[in-house]
Amino acid sequence: MNGAESLVHTLVGGGVRVSFTNPGTSEMHFVSALDRTEGMRCVLCLFEGVATGAADGYARMAETPAATLLHLGPGLANGIANLHNANRAASPMVNIVGDHATSHRKYDAPLASDIESAARVVSGWVRTSQSTGAVAQDAADAIAAALAPPGVISTLILPADVAWGEAGGPAKVPAVPARAQAGKDAVTAAAAVLRKGEPTVLLLGGHVLRKRGLEAAGRIARSTGAHVIGEMLNARLERGAGRFTIDRIPYPIDQSLARLKDYRQFILVGAKPPIAFFAYPDKPGRLYPPGAEMHVLAQPADDGVHALEWLADELGANEPAVLEPPSRPAAPTGAITFDSIGAAIGALLPEGAIVVDESVTSGRGLFAFTKGAPPHDWLQNRGGSIGYGMPVSIGAAIACPDRKVIALEGDGSAMYTIQSLWTQAREELDVVSVIFANRSYRILRNEMTNLGLGNPGPKAIDMLDLRRPDLDWVAMAAGMGIPGARVDTIDAFCRAFGRALRARGPYLIEMVF
Amino acid sequence: MNGAESLVHTLVGGGVRVSFTNPGTSEMHFVSALDRTEGMRCVLCLFEGVATGAADGYARMAETPAATLLHLGPGLANGIANLHNANRAASPMVNIVGDHATSHRKYDAPLASDIESAARVVSGWVRTSQSTGAVAQDAADAIAAALAPPGVISTLILPADVAWGEAGGPAKVPAVPARAQAGKDAVTAAAAVLRKGEPTVLLLGGHVLRKRGLEAAGRIARSTGAHVIGEMLNARLERGAGRFTIDRIPYPIDQSLARLKDYRQFILVGAKPPIAFFAYPDKPGRLYPPGAEMHVLAQPADDGVHALEWLADELGANEPAVLEPPSRPAAPTGAITFDSIGAAIGALLPEGAIVVDESVTSGRGLFAFTKGAPPHDWLQNRGGSIGYGMPVSIGAAIACPDRKVIALEGDGSAMYTIQSLWTQAREELDVVSVIFANRSYRILRNEMTNLGLGNPGPKAIDMLDLRRPDLDWVAMAAGMGIPGARVDTIDAFCRAFGRALRARGPYLIEMVF
Repeated sequence: MNGAESLVHTLVGGGVRVSFTNPGTSEMHFVSALDRTEGMRCVLCLFEGVATGAADGYARMAETPAATLLHLGPGLANGIANLHNANRAASPMVNIVGDHATSHRKYDAPLASDIESAARVVSGWVRTSQSTGAVAQDAADAIAAALAPPGVISTLILPADVAWGEAGGPAKVPAVPARAQAGKDAVTAAAAVLRKGEPTVLLLGGHVLRKRGLEAAGRIARSTGAHVIGEMLNARLERGAGRFTIDRIPYPIDQSLARLKDYRQFILVGAKPPIAFFAYPDKPGRLYPPGAEMHVLAQPADDGVHALEWLADELGANEPAVLEPPSRPAAPTGAITFDSIGAAIGALLPEGAIVVDESVTSGRGLFAFTKGAPPHDWLQNRGGSIGYGMPVSIGAAIACPDRKVIALEGDGSAMYTIQSLWTQAREELDVVSVIFANRSYRILRNEMTNLGLGNPGPKAIDMLDLRRPDLDWVAMAAGMGIPGARVDTIDAFCRAFGRALRARGPYLIEMVF
Repeated sequence: MNGAESLVHTLVGGGVRVSFTNPGTSEMHFVSALDRTEGMRCVLCLFEGVATGAADGYARMAETPAATLLHLGPGLANGIANLHNANRAASPMVNIVGDHATSHRKYDAPLASDIESAARVVSGWVRTSQSTGAVAQDAADAIAAALAPPGVISTLILPADVAWGEAGGPAKVPAVPARAQAGKDAVTAAAAVLRKGEPTVLLLGGHVLRKRGLEAAGRIARSTGAHVIGEMLNARLERGAGRFTIDRIPYPIDQSLARLKDYRQFILVGAKPPIAFFAYPDKPGRLYPPGAEMHVLAQPADDGVHALEWLADELGANEPAVLEPPSRPAAPTGAITFDSIGAAIGALLPEGAIVVDESVTSGRGLFAFTKGAPPHDWLQNRGGSIGYGMPVSIGAAIACPDRKVIALEGDGSAMYTIQSLWTQAREELDVVSVIFANRSYRILRNEMTNLGLGNPGPKAIDMLDLRRPDLDWVAMAAGMGIPGARVDTIDAFCRAFGRALRARGPYLIEMVF
């Protein structure tokens, strides 16, 4: 058994069952080891940002790490933007980054670079495997590190000769600590805050945003009158009819300030104190009002669900949460507007859907229209680096093959990782991509106004405009093996979207407006 | 004048006349400043790797830096792979990377990351501008750093509040040292080596690979019998009829070892001792034979042209170099083979063409077929990170609007930065892209054999295969506004290529074989 084989056996034995790969020469022994090992599904991606984003989506839905296979420093670099997003989403992941053979390092070959420094920017755990004897244990440690709450990016650098040399057998993954439980003091303090009756918000983030955590928060809300709200961007939020469905902090600076201005008390459960996504001249960076008090019930790595249930019990909040009643907007007709987009998605969203939301400007109103739709998951971009959506939809579809994945994409965003479509086609994934083709970086036009740059001239407009030429998304999708349709009315969208939801397999809808 | 304006004025005053941009919210004041400043051409790219690769191509042909505009750490990260290539090519470049306002740093906002650490991996000069008062001088220093021989990647990090705050005027670029001239000892030593008459090679790299440096090397070759050869990968090589046209070290390990095995003396002129691109079990990392002696006539930052001319004079090498006679292969017919590809390119290559070569496997034989074609430049990937070709062709076309740019692309490679096609269309660049659609990572199939992994199984084959589904390059190009044709015979290729060369503007040919 060579080093690569001992590594792959360790990964499979440690529960890593999917690898999103973009290999090169230095990873050929790893590829060859995958060939000879049962239990690992290999998914080829034609760009590394697709691989890392897919591993993020997989981790969010499977709650277990996938591996990536990346080629040297530049291959890792191409994956960094989506690793940044995954890191902010606390998605566990094990990156395997091939490196030159240790004997080759002294030559400073063309592809040599400082892989460790690049990896550290986005990884909680980084190690270069130093020998074939160590590589299995290194892989086991990488898995254990990834599984540490709330979820960590591990990056293991694999020199080619460590992969091809003779090694021992696989290693076992060390025990991983569970999430820490809240202390009595934090629960008592939160209960005291809630009993004061001041305007109070329970601000939720991370793993509590599932059915059980939300229902505990809903019991507290019902008993105390506190409001429950999610962070601005959430890795995975369970919502819809029959769930305790919450809103989130809006993105636009003026809206978020207005939304939070009246609260005096913030109880943080897996969330951080709310701050602005960007800074603006003459606007505050904190979204909470001066003088508001922050109380931490659970850190992101803590067991926030247990803490919420304990707090509810402490408060005697015995009435169950008020669950969202089923409701759907009527299917809209006529022009495409933000409201008719919301109504269309709300009218048609299927049960169990996984919505990967990178709709940027166009999707701001979607939450209100979909809150009573059949139960579904909503995934957002925690890190803000665009190009996350289509790759994440790949990983979500592989983790949950029986659920429909709906990728809502701004046209500007979708271009960054457009190679995703090919992998969706190859793997026959059940993903419907909706491209909101407003043919501009529309969000930036809005941001210019927020920044006091209200009247951009022709050169600035050109930098924010995706016309000349218009992108033809249906043609690009066809070029990567995915059928699609272009629509320019909401009626046509509803027909195309309904058809795509009833069918299986990848499909793309370009909505021009 | 705000900080962004003082920065843009400094760039323009310092000779930076093109900016390849992919902006975000934190760069809006910079975009707005570009709007109000004459003298800077702004080229929008839909992915950051396109922007950095374009700046590389521009620098290679214009011999002056372009700027890039990138959005925060993840935007820089998306550009790192092509910055790695540009760094290895010693292309001068000034990256402007927006950052959160300094007042916002303490909040660890979603897009915050360690930009400096990521930048250092691929930059020779990195600075975060600390104040509006300093930003103009920072920009001037960045330009000066970029211009230091042989050419440096400068990265200036621009916090949003440094851009929007009130600043003074622009700053002047400090004086830049010229290339160091060779010392008499090095010239005398090289002359002595050449006079010995042992098998000797002049190994050239960097800026000497232009007409004048090559002709000096050619004088030496004619006078001494030494051979002249280029490094394996060269940023820009002038060649063709009427030039002293040289070969380069081949990429495949067995060929490169065979090519160099008989030389006893290596005189390095802007080149490094030749080493293997990758390590292989049981093969040497050094490409030169044991016992061969290395002599440095000029380091990459030195004035190698002056050194070669001095050495030629020292040797009394008064006969001019033997220049390449005009010759073209006959236009081929029939099947597509590596030889017929070479013949077709050689038969049709127009005078003044800039060939951006990322043909990987398919283009290995092109040098022999094109050596007598009308004079042209040949650009290669110094850093080896694939996805360099289409972006570099953008920059080359902008630097040299009167020359035809021919991007020779493997299909696997072209996918990494496929967004390049849109910028080619928007800017109406005179670029003909030829996609060698062998529908696999063919090079890796060959490398598996070199690595002793000769019989890949189905899972490994799947990781190297671009079928299921086939990529339709003509459809993808059309989706980004570029016309194209698919050919599957060499006759059809010659017709399509000839037509594209006679026309102006971007065109794509997919060659299926």
